[in-house]
Formats: sequence, structure tokens, C-alpha cells
Amino acid sequence: MKRIAALLQSDPSLHEITVRGWVRSFRNDRFIALNDGSCLGNLQCVIEPENFERELLDQINIAAAVAVTGTLVESEGSGQRVELQASKVKVLAPADPEDVKKTVLSPKRHNLETLREQAHLRVRTNTFGAVMRVRAALSFAVHRYFQEKGFYQAHTPILTGSDAEGAGEMFRVSTLDPKNMPLNEDGSVDYKQDFFGKESNLTVSGQLEAETYAMGLGQVYTFGPTFRAENSNTSRHLAEFWMIEPEVAFNDLQDNMDLAEDFIKDVIAYAMKNCAEDIEFLENRLQQEEKSKPEADRSPMPLKEKLEFVLKNHFKRVSYTEAIEILKSSKPNKKKKFNYIIEEWGADLQSEHERFLVEKHFKCPVILFDYPAKIKAFYMRLNEKDKEGRETVRAMDILFPGIGEIVGGSQREERYDVLKQKMETMGIPEEELWWYLEMRKFGSVTHSGFGLGFERLVLFVTGMTNIRDVIPFPRTPGNAAF
Amino acid sequence: MKRIAALLQSDPSLHEITVRGWVRSFRNDRFIALNDGSCLGNLQCVIEPENFERELLDQINIAAAVAVTGTLVESEGSGQRVELQASKVKVLAPADPEDVKKTVLSPKRHNLETLREQAHLRVRTNTFGAVMRVRAALSFAVHRYFQEKGFYQAHTPILTGSDAEGAGEMFRVSTLDPKNMPLNEDGSVDYKQDFFGKESNLTVSGQLEAETYAMGLGQVYTFGPTFRAENSNTSRHLAEFWMIEPEVAFNDLQDNMDLAEDFIKDVIAYAMKNCAEDIEFLENRLQQEEKSKPEADRSPMPLKEKLEFVLKNHFKRVSYTEAIEILKSSKPNKKKKFNYIIEEWGADLQSEHERFLVEKHFKCPVILFDYPAKIKAFYMRLNEKDKEGRETVRAMDILFPGIGEIVGGSQREERYDVLKQKMETMGIPEEELWWYLEMRKFGSVTHSGFGLGFERLVLFVTGMTNIRDVIPFPRTPGNAAF
Repeated sequence: MKRIAALLQSDPSLHEITVRGWVRSFRNDRFIALNDGSCLGNLQCVIEPENFERELLDQINIAAAVAVTGTLVESEGSGQRVELQASKVKVLAPADPEDVKKTVLSPKRHNLETLREQAHLRVRTNTFGAVMRVRAALSFAVHRYFQEKGFYQAHTPILTGSDAEGAGEMFRVSTLDPKNMPLNEDGSVDYKQDFFGKESNLTVSGQLEAETYAMGLGQVYTFGPTFRAENSNTSRHLAEFWMIEPEVAFNDLQDNMDLAEDFIKDVIAYAMKNCAEDIEFLENRLQQEEKSKPEADRSPMPLKEKLEFVLKNHFKRVSYTEAIEILKSSKPNKKKKFNYIIEEWGADLQSEHERFLVEKHFKCPVILFDYPAKIKAFYMRLNEKDKEGRETVRAMDILFPGIGEIVGGSQREERYDVLKQKMETMGIPEEELWWYLEMRKFGSVTHSGFGLGFERLVLFVTGMTNIRDVIPFPRTPGNAAF
Repeated sequence: MKRIAALLQSDPSLHEITVRGWVRSFRNDRFIALNDGSCLGNLQCVIEPENFERELLDQINIAAAVAVTGTLVESEGSGQRVELQASKVKVLAPADPEDVKKTVLSPKRHNLETLREQAHLRVRTNTFGAVMRVRAALSFAVHRYFQEKGFYQAHTPILTGSDAEGAGEMFRVSTLDPKNMPLNEDGSVDYKQDFFGKESNLTVSGQLEAETYAMGLGQVYTFGPTFRAENSNTSRHLAEFWMIEPEVAFNDLQDNMDLAEDFIKDVIAYAMKNCAEDIEFLENRLQQEEKSKPEADRSPMPLKEKLEFVLKNHFKRVSYTEAIEILKSSKPNKKKKFNYIIEEWGADLQSEHERFLVEKHFKCPVILFDYPAKIKAFYMRLNEKDKEGRETVRAMDILFPGIGEIVGGSQREERYDVLKQKMETMGIPEEELWWYLEMRKFGSVTHSGFGLGFERLVLFVTGMTNIRDVIPFPRTPGNAAF
């Protein structure tokens, strides 16, 4: 049985077919707009009301499921090539209009918060159908890209006995009786009695494990859920999100930037090509939404133009040191408009600084690299000191307009002695990460990788503004419903 | 820079190239077997020892990383089309032979338990390189299959506030201070103070959420990690494993069986085609391993023959009721060789019964369907009672030789009243799953799906015998290392 996405591309035919889907609207007892989720578009099914019982017509309600039999004919009015001239309609599953009225399935504009409260139904709306189809296309594009480049997916673990990475606050996982935790003599919890025989957490990143696989298979990537137990109630943070982490043996930081830029452009291009209808719809949605915003808060470009712009332009590559100079002499810094005034080299960049660089100064995606060693993770490759004796690491962050950081990556410290020293200095326990260190003894080559927060990519491509609206069932502080 | 998988397929050429990889062996100061993880095969690099310093030659050790420059010439001895006539060798990263000797990188047969203890290095052995490349190919094949059939991937949540499904014991997730849990007046834990404001667990299945997406997008699938906090120390169970769960609107149980069989055959065929060299190697490995086993425990067929057999034969479809008849009159039942003797209709089938049906009776994959309602989950579609008044549900399990259950699925109960009644009877709290029930009010059509344990599929295709050897870093009771 053909689905509507395929039928809408078909030619008229005398061959009788049956189509199943859900009613999106039913006008004048005559025109059923039928949707089966395969695409945004509805198939218009035209019936002659006099050929049908009143009782049947009364069941053709919004959200009801029907099977319509008929022939595809040329469409005159509906803006589509074909419509279904229906000879038979069967109601497969009803929907009571009184019940529908109480939900987001009712045909009116619902605000996004209401839609979130009905996350089990919102995918049946045009907006969320479009978002989730784009999400799925991007997801497939990720696998396809790496497959074509000879990468192997490595399924790194979600449960981890090590909390040593320091990439963020972690969720603790346990099967101990919470009302009656076994304690050691010193009052600490006796995790020896727990499921894994030690304290266990949800991963914040698969990178360290992926590195071991890069040393075996050369080019690997992860694509799985990661977790942050941080109390961030913002439109850009989730407690559970999906992350993509490629890791490549023999790649240095330049190769890493090239890979990240090529990758992002490829998957965006894939979505634009394969989700043209959905993206068109989301562009219009965004324009509608922005009408209610003050001019200054509106996107400078329509959605598709913004995506094209990213594809066409090189990401601007700027060292941290250059960025600090630009920021120091910027208007908002001089006029003390920033919340955090940039005084000197070494300062950690805040989201306001990143937005200034991307949205005001360069007006394009920016790759910042070579950050001060002190503000970055222990595993990043140390550069030679510069003339002023300052220490930087081969880190890179990719900043996107409206999104902020979409990628964080680095060349990794491949030298055993340097890494061991760094772990000691930064208080990373060797007994937890002995394997990560030991790997540096055996043909430990230059290698690099990055992490891309998948939901931020989906946010960018769909033009949605809250990250809770680009994942089916968002997890945030206080919310694990469904 | 071309990788070795591509070079081994190339023609000889006078063009000078540089290849990077790790040394797998170095014979007679002359022949370097170089591997870069892109494939099982090594590139033979031939050097003239007199052209190189002794000091350099002494660093070309197993597991060291080198860059070799030269030209591809026709190979005479190595069993490959081409080899590299090397003019230059650069040691990129050394490996001390004394250190290597202590690890699984040393060139001898290591037992699988030792390899598990060095999970950060085992992917650099031939066996685990092959297994993980096959795993990655199967993983891509899954996405490709569903993509081509018009399915959308739905990323269902890992953290869940509902423990109502009853598919298995769950891990509890919390950020509360374990030494000082806040309690309610009645002595229970006050989860209102926890991160999500309620008790939260790791998911055992994305099915219920995926069903809501099938009602929106028509055809969806999940592919993500799932968890069981069960103290099962067997060769077929993991605490963390990856599961694939398609869910399709309008599919009944027959369609569901057709989909599962077609899907499994497609991804196996993909791996056979794209991982021929790795599977050949794994077949030989298995034959070696089986020599040490008593005849009765050996596989009846070599690996590739077994895979071909699955592709060529229909999966035998047998109702539970028929299966019980077969088992009741079977030799091991009559002679009381089963640990659980099958006495009557209604008995739950144990692994010994499943193995008998698959391996002794039918000698092919088997789909059992229409199980007694009492031994299956609440969400399965109830059949009409049979003549004897017995209640069955539209469940199906696919059983594979050597593996046991590889798929469990069902047509779902789409009727609001029946489901509500069932939830009440089986003690499923409506306040947890209100959304799952409510979905049945709005065009609730026939729909079906199944779950396939990805590691069991990898086990089957690679011929490995312990599930801990087909996932990079296995999680089992007492083990969350790395």
C-alpha cells in the first residue's frame, strides 16, 4: 500500500487504490484532507456526499482514522498534482470532537508550552511532524556521512564507573535501597554492594572510550544519548540529549576543523534537499512567530537563506588570542554593556561574547581555537608556550548564530608523560583512567575529535527556538513526564 | 590520504604515496605488516634493511605507529594484489616490546576473558577489529533499511519517570545525596526533591513512546540503549544493550512478522556483502575454537553457511498452541529431560523449550505467536477466545538457533476500553500511563511493532558465543569498568 508522500508524486491513474490515514479536515461534507505522517502534505480526498450515509459522514472527524478507496485524478483546486476521487470511505477508528477539542489536535494555533504538555500528541500537528521528520533526516544524514567516509560507529557505554571527566554534573545510577543505604564505617555509602560494585553514573561523553576505538579502527564516531544533571532551565539545555562524537587517528586540529565544517555542511545540505517541504513550512512558521517579536529579536534572515548562507561561506577561523583582542576593543566591552567585561587574556568566554563575535562582528559561523590551557579539559593537546609564555591547548569551539556553541572539540594529548603530569596537576584520578593513560604507551599517534550536540543542530535547521521542541520527550529539571 | 582498505583494492602505480598505521608484525628486518583499522587485512610494506639505520629498524615494533612512503607494486608472495615498496619509514609513535608483552597486543592467542579485561586494547586485535566492523556495518544496515522503507527514527527517552511497563528490573537515577536521603513522614523517599521531582529510572524499552510517534508519522523506529538491572550473569544478558524497535500504524501481527523477517534478512545480507573478509576470518576463528569443544556442543554449520541458511529459508511460523502440542509429545518432555516439564497449555516456555523447537524440531528460525494472555504484557492485542475459552494475545517471539529469543513483538491493543480494563486487572497505574491510554481516543488504529536486541543479532552474525564480546565496553553485574 502506497503512502501519501509517494502518491502526491504520482500521475493520475484509473487503477483503484486504498489510502489510510488520519483526517486533518473535512469541509462541506466533501473534501477530506488525509494525512498519514509520511509527509507534511495532505492528500485531498473528494467524496460525493449524496453517495454516503449521514451516519458515516458524521464520523469523518478531525483525528479520526479512515481508509479511502478511489482513483487518483488530476487536481484542479488544491495546489497539488493529484487528488483522490473517492468511491468508498471506511472509518477505521473514530475521534470524538468533544475530546479532540481539549487537545492540541484541535485545529487552531496552540502555544508551544501547551504542546509540550501533550508531547504524546504534538507529533500529529504540522509543526511537530515537520520538526521530527527533519530531525530523522538529519539523524540519517549523520550515519550516511560517516559511512561514506569510512568511519565505524562505536557504541560507547552509557553507564560509567568513572566520573573523572569533569564535563558536567552527573546522574547517579543505583539499585541500592534508597531508604536504607548500606554505609561504610566512615559514613560513606558502601557502593561495593551496588549493582556494579562501585559508584556508577550516566555518561557525559563517549569521547575517552571512542579514543581507544580510534586507535584500533582509525576513524570512529559515536551517536548516542548523554546526560547533564545541571539545573539549567534555559532554551538551549536538556538533561538528556544526543551527541555525535567523531574521533580520528592521525588528524590534527586543522584536520579536525575541516572535518567538522564539512560534516555540518553535508548534513544541512542533506536535510535541505530531502525535507524541502517541511523546511519551507518551518520557515513560514518562524516568520509568523517573529511578527510578534520586537524587530531587534528577529532573525536577520529567513530560515532557508540562513541555511544557504552557512553552506556557501567558510566558517571563520579565529584564535582565542585574536578573539580576545577583538572583544577588548569592542563597543559593548568599552561601554560596559557586557555582563562580564573582558579585561585580559585568560578570561573564559561567556555566551554574550560568543554571540557578539558571531552575530555582530563576523556575521557567520566562527571556529575559535587555541584556548588557554587553564580553562579547558585535561586531555587537550598542549601547544608550545607563546612568546609571552602563555600556555594554550589545541581546542576548538564552533559557534553558530542564534545557537551559540554547537561543536566543542580538540586535538588530544597523545604524549604519555605530558598527559600523566596534566592529570596529576588537574586532580584527575589515575586509578579511574589508567586505561586512558595506558593507551598512550602503544603507538599513540596524533588524534582529534569533537562533540556536536544533535539537538542544537536540529534547532538550527528547523528554526525552532526552544530545544524542548526538537526532541520527542524533553528531560529538564522537574520534568521526566511520558 | 588513502586508507589501507582502499589501497588493497588498487592497481600498482609509480605514484609515490605515504601510508600510516600500526605495525602488526615485522619480519626479517624487511616485511612490515601495516594495519590502520580500515579493514582486517594488512598492507605488506617491503623495505631494504641496508637503506635504514639500525636504530630506526629497532623501533619498528609491534603496536608502534609508522608512516611508510613508497610505491604500490604487484605482490608476489603475500596473497594480496599489491604491496608497498618502501623508500622511507618514519616512526610516528613507539611501543616498547616489554610493555606490549604484558598486553593483548602481543602476538599470541589470548583468551576472551583476558581480552575483556583489556577492553581498551582488544579492538586492536584481529578478532575484535572484525567483530566491531561487523557490528558497525549491521548498525548502518539498520538505519539504511528503515530509511529506504520510509521509516523515521524516533529518539525516545532514556530517563523515564514511569516504571510501569514491567519489562524488567530498572536502574534508579537520582541526584539526591545518597548519604542523606530526604524522607517523607511515612518514611518513603521524598522524590519531589530529586532532579525530576519524581522517582526516575532508566528505560527498559522505548515502545510505548514510539507508539505515540507511529500515530503521528506512521512508521517509526528507535535504535538506542536500554537497561535491565537484573542479576543475570549469562553469556546472553547485558545490563546495558542496544535495542531496535520499529512501530507501524495499520500493521497487524502478520504484517509485523513479515517486517521482522524481511528486516533481519536484509541486514544480515548487508553484512555478508560488506564484511565478507571479516566474516570469513570469524568463521575460521569459530572453527578453531570449536575444535576444543565436545562434538555435541559444536555449531552444526560453519558461520557463512548458517547465515546463508537464514537468508534462504522462511522462518517457520507456529502458534503457541501448536508449539505446546509438539513439546508435550517430544522425547525430552516424555523422558523428563527438560528441567521444566510441559504439562499443559498456559505454561511459559523456557529457553530449553525454545532451543528444542528451533534446534531439534524445526531446525530453522521459528516465529511463535498467539501466546496465552496471562504470560504476556498488558499492551498486547487480545484475540477472541478460542473454542475452549482460552485467551491469547497477538504476541510473537522470533527464536534463533544458538541465540534463543532475538525478537519479541506484538500487535498492540488499540481499543480504549479493553486496554483500560487490562491495565486495571494487571495493576498498571493509570496515573503513570494516562497518555498511553488517552492516545487510544484519537483515531486509534491497528498497529504493531517489535524489539530486536542488537547485540544478539551481532552475536549471531559474528559467531561469537558471549554477548560481552560484541559490545565495546560490556556492563554486567559487578562490571562497569572503562
